[in-house]
Amino acid sequence: MEFTEAAAEPGTARPGGRTARVRAAVLEATADVLAGQGFAHLDLADVARRAEVGKTTVYRRWGTVTGLVTDLLLDMAQQSLPRTETGSLLGDLTANARLVRRTLADPRQGALFKAVIAAAGSDPKAAEALYGFYSARVDAWAPCVEQAAARGEVPEGTDAHEVIRATSAPLYYRLLTTPFPLDEADADRAAQAAAAAARAGAYVRRPPV
Amino acid sequence: MEFTEAAAEPGTARPGGRTARVRAAVLEATADVLAGQGFAHLDLADVARRAEVGKTTVYRRWGTVTGLVTDLLLDMAQQSLPRTETGSLLGDLTANARLVRRTLADPRQGALFKAVIAAAGSDPKAAEALYGFYSARVDAWAPCVEQAAARGEVPEGTDAHEVIRATSAPLYYRLLTTPFPLDEADADRAAQAAAAAARAGAYVRRPPV
Repeated sequence: MEFTEAAAEPGTARPGGRTARVRAAVLEATADVLAGQGFAHLDLADVARRAEVGKTTVYRRWGTVTGLVTDLLLDMAQQSLPRTETGSLLGDLTANARLVRRTLADPRQGALFKAVIAAAGSDPKAAEALYGFYSARVDAWAPCVEQAAARGEVPEGTDAHEVIRATSAPLYYRLLTTPFPLDEADADRAAQAAAAAARAGAYVRRPPV
Repeated sequence: MEFTEAAAEPGTARPGGRTARVRAAVLEATADVLAGQGFAHLDLADVARRAEVGKTTVYRRWGTVTGLVTDLLLDMAQQSLPRTETGSLLGDLTANARLVRRTLADPRQGALFKAVIAAAGSDPKAAEALYGFYSARVDAWAPCVEQAAARGEVPEGTDAHEVIRATSAPLYYRLLTTPFPLDEADADRAAQAAAAAARAGAYVRRPPV
């Protein structure tokens, strides 16, 4: 769990208390169903049974399967690891890409990410929650590009968020559109490509035409 | 349709004949349901009704909803546009990225791609068909990188398939993980980034460690 972009066991890092324990159990059951069977099989009564929590509690607190997915993504964003600082753009992007790679290459988390992306494709509220998760992750890592710009490693006006998204993009694309495994070499290449393109000025913001 | 990576109206480019017309109608209905409601709502009887084709024919010929998705992806691959040749790597990658961008920015096709990616996340046979579609597209465009290597624009040993995937990846990542629109500027930036990274040697194949 400490090596992944999002917590493998939702809720486990939260402080105690019955409400927190119930949420942890429900979100873990939600993640289990999503990773194992997918969004289409998510069912509140089934999640309550798996979490050993009263059905009424789950219905009252989460309301719908979309409510479960939304809360899970919020929890994943809150429990994500902070960024690494290595002192160079390539070092920082490599740390980011390796973190994303480890997350997606983990069978349970890879399946979970595929499931929440699938849910977002058909459910606008799940999509909003998914966008929120990625926005929080990109915001967390963007300073490494801003620092690189301050050090003169990349041109002024480089869009830091675009560089972070560019680092993750090939890893997600490989996960979703190919049967190939995701190796550390893939992560390193994603980071090298994003760093090289950033240095060449490909992510400099352009005035609207 | 001529401006998109995959045909907007499945089957329409095929030669006539009753069997071909039935397939075209069934695949168009399949794409309608996927784009409008998603994979979870795909149903053979409903597709037959929409296509005005006998239910028995659809069950006999496609068997399952996965069979429908698989045949749709095959059709999309077969009807995809051939690559453009502009004489420069950046020109070719820009043509590729703009084609992908137009496809994904089209509301119906964007929703269709989200739906088939979602289907692939939960259905191994749909995943295989999806991988086949992308493999065919990447194969079709890879020669533009091989020609660039022959011209000396990128280092020898550059992985052409990786460069083509790198061109599409940020566009898909933006479609799936952000609420932002996909503009032509996004396509151009994706092509510039992939070309810059390729020139810098980021996609040179490395011997296994």
